[in-house]
Amino acid sequence: MTAHMSDSERFERLKRFFNNRDRLCKCLGISVIEIGHGTASTHMVIEDKHLNGADVVQGGAIFTLADLAFGAAANSHGTLALGVNMTIAFSKPGLSGELTAHARETAAAGPLSTYVVEVKDEAGETIATFQGTAYRKRDKIDLSAWG
Amino acid sequence: MTAHMSDSERFERLKRFFNNRDRLCKCLGISVIEIGHGTASTHMVIEDKHLNGADVVQGGAIFTLADLAFGAAANSHGTLALGVNMTIAFSKPGLSGELTAHARETAAAGPLSTYVVEVKDEAGETIATFQGTAYRKRDKIDLSAWG
Amino acid sequence: MTAHMSDSERFERLKRFFNNRDRLCKCLGISVIEIGHGTASTHMVIEDKHLNGADVVQGGAIFTLADLAFGAAANSHGTLALGVNMTIAFSKPGLSGELTAHARETAAAGPLSTYVVEVKDEAGETIATFQGTAYRKRDKIDLSAWG
Amino acid sequence: MTAHMSDSERFERLKRFFNNRDRLCKCLGISVIEIGHGTASTHMVIEDKHLNGADVVQGGAIFTLADLAFGAAANSHGTLALGVNMTIAFSKPGLSGELTAHARETAAAGPLSTYVVEVKDEAGETIATFQGTAYRKRDKIDLSAWG
Repeated sequence: MTAHMSDSERFERLKRFFNNRDRLCKCLGISVIEIGHGTASTHMVIEDKHLNGADVVQGGAIFTLADLAFGAAANSHGTLALGVNMTIAFSKPGLSGELTAHARETAAAGPLSTYVVEVKDEAGETIATFQGTAYRKRDKIDLSAWG
Repeated sequence: MTAHMSDSERFERLKRFFNNRDRLCKCLGISVIEIGHGTASTHMVIEDKHLNGADVVQGGAIFTLADLAFGAAANSHGTLALGVNMTIAFSKPGLSGELTAHARETAAAGPLSTYVVEVKDEAGETIATFQGTAYRKRDKIDLSAWG
Repeated sequence: MTAHMSDSERFERLKRFFNNRDRLCKCLGISVIEIGHGTASTHMVIEDKHLNGADVVQGGAIFTLADLAFGAAANSHGTLALGVNMTIAFSKPGLSGELTAHARETAAAGPLSTYVVEVKDEAGETIATFQGTAYRKRDKIDLSAWG
Repeated sequence: MTAHMSDSERFERLKRFFNNRDRLCKCLGISVIEIGHGTASTHMVIEDKHLNGADVVQGGAIFTLADLAFGAAANSHGTLALGVNMTIAFSKPGLSGELTAHARETAAAGPLSTYVVEVKDEAGETIATFQGTAYRKRDKIDLSAWG
């Protein structure tokens, strides 16, 4: 069935797949809001459960927000991509309100692809910059259950 | 009071601080099990809430496990250290049982310090390799509440 | 004197400083071609001395090209910035002709700033994606000798 | 012929290959001094051509030193490994004398392997910490010319 699916239908199903099946993201209130060709956006609203001992958002929550955007963008081409290496640089603390992450593909050639993700707060200031490399398998992603 | 505290007492209080105040780690069942001079170990038992859409441990959970070991090691010297940059490379999926992370300081000079963290499964195989850089402030960590 | 210098004059002097004083880049034929506010571009023409055992450009040459763009961008604000952490992901081999790198600032707050650098070949395809974090000191860069 | 080669003979030939064929390393005076199972060491003596505008060793030279150790270790198993992602954290400036890098494999499973490299100065202090991920092809490395 997936062979006849439009890109926009595929992106919609992939979004549903992530938002229903990624249990860590569900536990943390992190969700995919948009997927395009080699791009994706995610968001979360800061809650008490995201904080560290210094009462700011724990790096692991920001990493997970960025990583989900990276994962959604890397899998936007319809074949399975696995995250193999990620780097994150923190610029300022996440304090309150909504955080959003936007992933953009910088390269996709052969078995590897690379993405840059910027995480911003409500004021539009960059909280973190993330770079991820994915290993691309030839397997098609089965989205037949997510129509 | 902290001036008269032994190192082992300080490590014990720091562990209590992380395990009580880091709400993301509490939410995810991640805890510090040991702190030494520039070293720390953390662990978690894999649960359904840690999994991604492929039914293996989400990278964000493994990152958080490694990051807590990094953070505990970086703060083991008694002055405040903030994580500024982290890299993680994934080697094999986390499937079930317990994961442990061990952080070791490779350099601490001037305002920056660097750590290597290895995350292993119960079979002792490396799940992920993590490298973190911390920015060291001069502020003492107040552990007076954690005796 | 630097107090009365225009931004464009400062960028020009900074470019002269890098292109005259960075001996590794001179040795490798790498130079800064443009500096702006938080941005910089560098280039090199591939020569035999840049190649590795597989007859493609050695990763260290591409890293140095990206790192110079990062360093020039990080120092574009007039105060000294030191590179503390860099990550590079390689997408395809550099074979021949000219390579260019362009650095863009994603965040500059407090003592740290972060940059994304994309390295491209003559066909405009991405060879490597680089992320760098700099530690910003308060010292002014003395460019009085480079007028 | 390679089928009957002992490991120590293979390590010796691989070292000869790198030290003769990697033209960037030859240009910079960087060489492999030892290769083992998943390990390798490299060294360089600091010269004027390695310096940056601040008269300390340019990050690109230290990266190349670490990257060669990583590359030699990743290729020590006899099949071709390509570096895909590297991270380097700088701890203190390289000023004079000899620098050495030692690479150690932390994981090798499936198509990827990961290495930690520590770069030290003559006093044994860590200059930089490096982490590298390699993509492992099935192709044998032909060392027949390096006996």
